[in-house]
Amino acid sequence: MSKIFLDISYLGTAYQGYQVQGDAPTVQKKLNEATKALFGIDCDIVGCSRTDSGVHANQFCATVTEKGKGYLNTGVPTQKIASALNFYLPSDIAVNGVKIVDDSFHPRYDVKCKEYIYVIWNGKERDPFVFDRSWHYPKHISNEALENMNASAKKLIGTKDFSSYMASNSTVQSTVRTIFDASLERDGNIIRFRISGDGFLYNMVRIIVGTLINVAEEKLSVEDIDKITEAHDRRLAGMTAPPQGLYLNKVVY
Amino acid sequence: MSKIFLDISYLGTAYQGYQVQGDAPTVQKKLNEATKALFGIDCDIVGCSRTDSGVHANQFCATVTEKGKGYLNTGVPTQKIASALNFYLPSDIAVNGVKIVDDSFHPRYDVKCKEYIYVIWNGKERDPFVFDRSWHYPKHISNEALENMNASAKKLIGTKDFSSYMASNSTVQSTVRTIFDASLERDGNIIRFRISGDGFLYNMVRIIVGTLINVAEEKLSVEDIDKITEAHDRRLAGMTAPPQGLYLNKVVY
Repeated sequence: MSKIFLDISYLGTAYQGYQVQGDAPTVQKKLNEATKALFGIDCDIVGCSRTDSGVHANQFCATVTEKGKGYLNTGVPTQKIASALNFYLPSDIAVNGVKIVDDSFHPRYDVKCKEYIYVIWNGKERDPFVFDRSWHYPKHISNEALENMNASAKKLIGTKDFSSYMASNSTVQSTVRTIFDASLERDGNIIRFRISGDGFLYNMVRIIVGTLINVAEEKLSVEDIDKITEAHDRRLAGMTAPPQGLYLNKVVY
Repeated sequence: MSKIFLDISYLGTAYQGYQVQGDAPTVQKKLNEATKALFGIDCDIVGCSRTDSGVHANQFCATVTEKGKGYLNTGVPTQKIASALNFYLPSDIAVNGVKIVDDSFHPRYDVKCKEYIYVIWNGKERDPFVFDRSWHYPKHISNEALENMNASAKKLIGTKDFSSYMASNSTVQSTVRTIFDASLERDGNIIRFRISGDGFLYNMVRIIVGTLINVAEEKLSVEDIDKITEAHDRRLAGMTAPPQGLYLNKVVY
């Protein structure tokens, strides 16, 4: 008994996030339609994460099983599934790899590490090629400000209660997560924030980016970061950066 | 008496090319609307080139003058025009620079060199982030094939009659152009063709790319290129590669 594991990527611009919500266009809805077209049966698609409206994925993992069964038996050869699903999927979603996994595998609970990237477009004027795939922050971020953002990001590494960086309307059993690494680098007009951890709270990466921007603007100092983290108070952290700069970049099992 | 010179860039996906065609969405139409909103008068916009539907521009130049006048007098300070026009333009078009030029300047006739880039996505499966900004050619292009394409591209350099690489339904006074350079390079799954010249015939870059793909597929040899060029016969060259891989990259006056 086995599940089909999909390694996919998508441009989130056209979707109201990953998860099915009624008839709204979502990535999961497109996967439901494509797997039904290919396998001829209704399927359960379980994703590794719930990305928000407008958020992208360079790598996203999901399993496919027959609806209500927990496994899927198919005569379609594994090496043909990717191309066949891509035939049924829209151009902004792609299946990059397919394998068979044991039916005990869970794409969300079994994640060991996730990496997100957040892209800031720091040019004065907008760039028509990245407007839906970055946050346009037009005020120039100096090298000194970037160093302070980097020093602030480093203070987030470790096992901590990150409730200060969680959307205030969300509920979760534990707000403790382990951040393995967090850093920023400049690449021309782009500033790329990269963060990896064993899991993330709702809106956590976007709230961290908003907080780092406050550091760039000298509304916060590097030293303030520990205080914000230890306060467990969402109101002390920065704004939630907009969704279109966020990419789920890597999922490790 | 002077003209306003705009240095712009655009993602061509949403547009039926640069040039106004009735009510169809075109880049020129958006520039007409934005300049009218900013300057409060109808303007003539003259572009450096006519790009086709779906074609992009990393750099495109245009002049703005009062309708029917050949010049424009405005109280808007030059250094504020870019941001102000960007406010009125959609997100997929950006003004990157503005200067004042003499009214004898012509954005098309005064071009000394234009550079185009054509982007081929050579991954087996599509990439959701480049589907509207490259040609997905899934059959792997080997290093040897790429070398042959490069050798073929070099044969186009010089002053020649390029009518074999012109859309068969187009008319023009002279089909002689000078190509300064032409080459291809691989960058991961992307193959980037770069070509510069004093001017290009209608669909010329896309027909050259289609011809180079015939070389990659060994339907043509490197030696065939000179024969095709000398025949002045569109039927001997390759297919017209699709528009979404083409970028006007640089315009030099």
